[in-house]
Amino acid sequence: MDRRFLLAGAAAGIAAGTAAAQTAPGAAAPTAAVPNAQAPGFYRFKVGDFTVTTVHDGFVLRTNPLEGLVTNADAAEVQAVLEGAALPTRGLMNPYIVTFVDTGRGLVAFDAGTGAGQMAPGTGLLPRNMAAAGLRPEDVTLVAVSHFHGDHITGLTTRENQPFFPNAEVAVPAAEWAWWSDTANEARSPQFQRPNFANTARRFAPLRPRMRMFEAEAEVAPGIRAIATPGHTPGHCSFHIASGREQFFVTADAAGRPELFLRQPGWHSIFDFDGAIAVESRRRLFSRIAAERARMAAYHFPFPGTGYILEEGGGFRFVPADWTSIV
Amino acid sequence: MDRRFLLAGAAAGIAAGTAAAQTAPGAAAPTAAVPNAQAPGFYRFKVGDFTVTTVHDGFVLRTNPLEGLVTNADAAEVQAVLEGAALPTRGLMNPYIVTFVDTGRGLVAFDAGTGAGQMAPGTGLLPRNMAAAGLRPEDVTLVAVSHFHGDHITGLTTRENQPFFPNAEVAVPAAEWAWWSDTANEARSPQFQRPNFANTARRFAPLRPRMRMFEAEAEVAPGIRAIATPGHTPGHCSFHIASGREQFFVTADAAGRPELFLRQPGWHSIFDFDGAIAVESRRRLFSRIAAERARMAAYHFPFPGTGYILEEGGGFRFVPADWTSIV
Repeated sequence: MDRRFLLAGAAAGIAAGTAAAQTAPGAAAPTAAVPNAQAPGFYRFKVGDFTVTTVHDGFVLRTNPLEGLVTNADAAEVQAVLEGAALPTRGLMNPYIVTFVDTGRGLVAFDAGTGAGQMAPGTGLLPRNMAAAGLRPEDVTLVAVSHFHGDHITGLTTRENQPFFPNAEVAVPAAEWAWWSDTANEARSPQFQRPNFANTARRFAPLRPRMRMFEAEAEVAPGIRAIATPGHTPGHCSFHIASGREQFFVTADAAGRPELFLRQPGWHSIFDFDGAIAVESRRRLFSRIAAERARMAAYHFPFPGTGYILEEGGGFRFVPADWTSIV
Repeated sequence: MDRRFLLAGAAAGIAAGTAAAQTAPGAAAPTAAVPNAQAPGFYRFKVGDFTVTTVHDGFVLRTNPLEGLVTNADAAEVQAVLEGAALPTRGLMNPYIVTFVDTGRGLVAFDAGTGAGQMAPGTGLLPRNMAAAGLRPEDVTLVAVSHFHGDHITGLTTRENQPFFPNAEVAVPAAEWAWWSDTANEARSPQFQRPNFANTARRFAPLRPRMRMFEAEAEVAPGIRAIATPGHTPGHCSFHIASGREQFFVTADAAGRPELFLRQPGWHSIFDFDGAIAVESRRRLFSRIAAERARMAAYHFPFPGTGYILEEGGGFRFVPADWTSIV
């Protein structure tokens, strides 16, 4: 229990479902000048003619499971890596980030977030951070879905199961639909992933008229192409975005937190459907991004979650892009 | 000239003094939904009962000098380090960050920024980002100055040389004042630093009635203590902030960009008054922060510029703190 962990105390409180302490016990009242509000959780940059915005949907400190978080490494080894990355060591600090790309012809969301008030406390911040970013749900023309884990598709619909993006098409990987829409596959899925079947049925029920499927390597929208990166789930896809001479990758969950799964790309995550296949996909995708020196954004990297990939020591290193006030 | 550099094109344009391209040439008009605005440049967190806000004052890509930026290493070696850090290789991307600490008894600014419209294009964003953070210049009760380089003290006063923080005391290191207020020292200062004498005279002229000096290791305000870290300038100070069981360091310019001067703490920066003394101060300060596992903020680290320090490979590694929506 180190100081860094103590400093993450507010987050831990939230993950544990306790009330978020807005001020420490016994805190002096802040001066009138200093509100207790955080900056809005979005970050914007250009890729060629496209405007990209990454939006923070919150985070949890997943303390269960840490034992077993990496299924092919000892918990002690995982803790050592977390310690060496100045991260909390008693759980996985897991941020959620939805990336939006304005192509000039439409506004594309990559995944849909956890849904306001639908998952763990500390998540579901997408609507308020979208508003801060000037992104309106009704202006989203397409949701490109990477895979059907709950933290990526629950936000497709509200608590009442109404579409959150009222005018958007929803494009999903054909292989992902094939797996999770067929309950015959439930017994062949890891225990941990079985709730995805019910959630898939629920979330897509009101979206069927506007849903379409795409194959790996297909162009999902002008300038946006799917890349098959299976393993995390049977049909998991990442995306390649190109505008002019610039390119950009949305890696989704091809790797979880980079301090773990990029530095140790051979590690199998408890969240991976098939760890060995996930490792193959991960190495292929991130080797390509590193070789191209392209910018990328991921769903669970530290916010704002966008930067570059370097090959280093048999693995990869994520280098966050410098923050700038200039879009 | 690599892709990562091209992606920093907007910044380069600004540093070169050209008009900031708000959209790429030939860009499609963004949809009505997506404004071209960046998120406000501030980040807030607690240290014990204190509320800390780091505020972005802008940045420049300093292309002159890169040759000679590190006075005891070859430019090729410096370029290799920049390349390995996925940074532009033709200049130093230099952010400016002012840290504010609300102690409940006062609002303390650590340095004053570059001043709106007073230094290079791309800088001077402090007033607008303070406003976004709910920090009013009139509520600042104390400016604790680390040293007298132009990018730290120019913002003490406006273009018209009126105090920017109208109600603040200004506390300065006694050794810093002694050096830069005495023009007899000009001939004994590096050529590059001689403009500091005139700027010191100008900026402090209207502030003398509210100025006080502090010695190294003195308590500058309740919970805030100066740490002598000379070398970058003769009287350069860093600060230790303590509240309850938590502590926090404001390192100011004890190290420039961490990819260069923490990974290679023995390097002498062109901006250092005395490189060898600066190296001693840097090693002492960052060894302490690493050993204490304390949180820190620096003036020229990648925004939001706050995180932790690890000892690694004979140098140090900066680990940015995870961004959270919870203050």
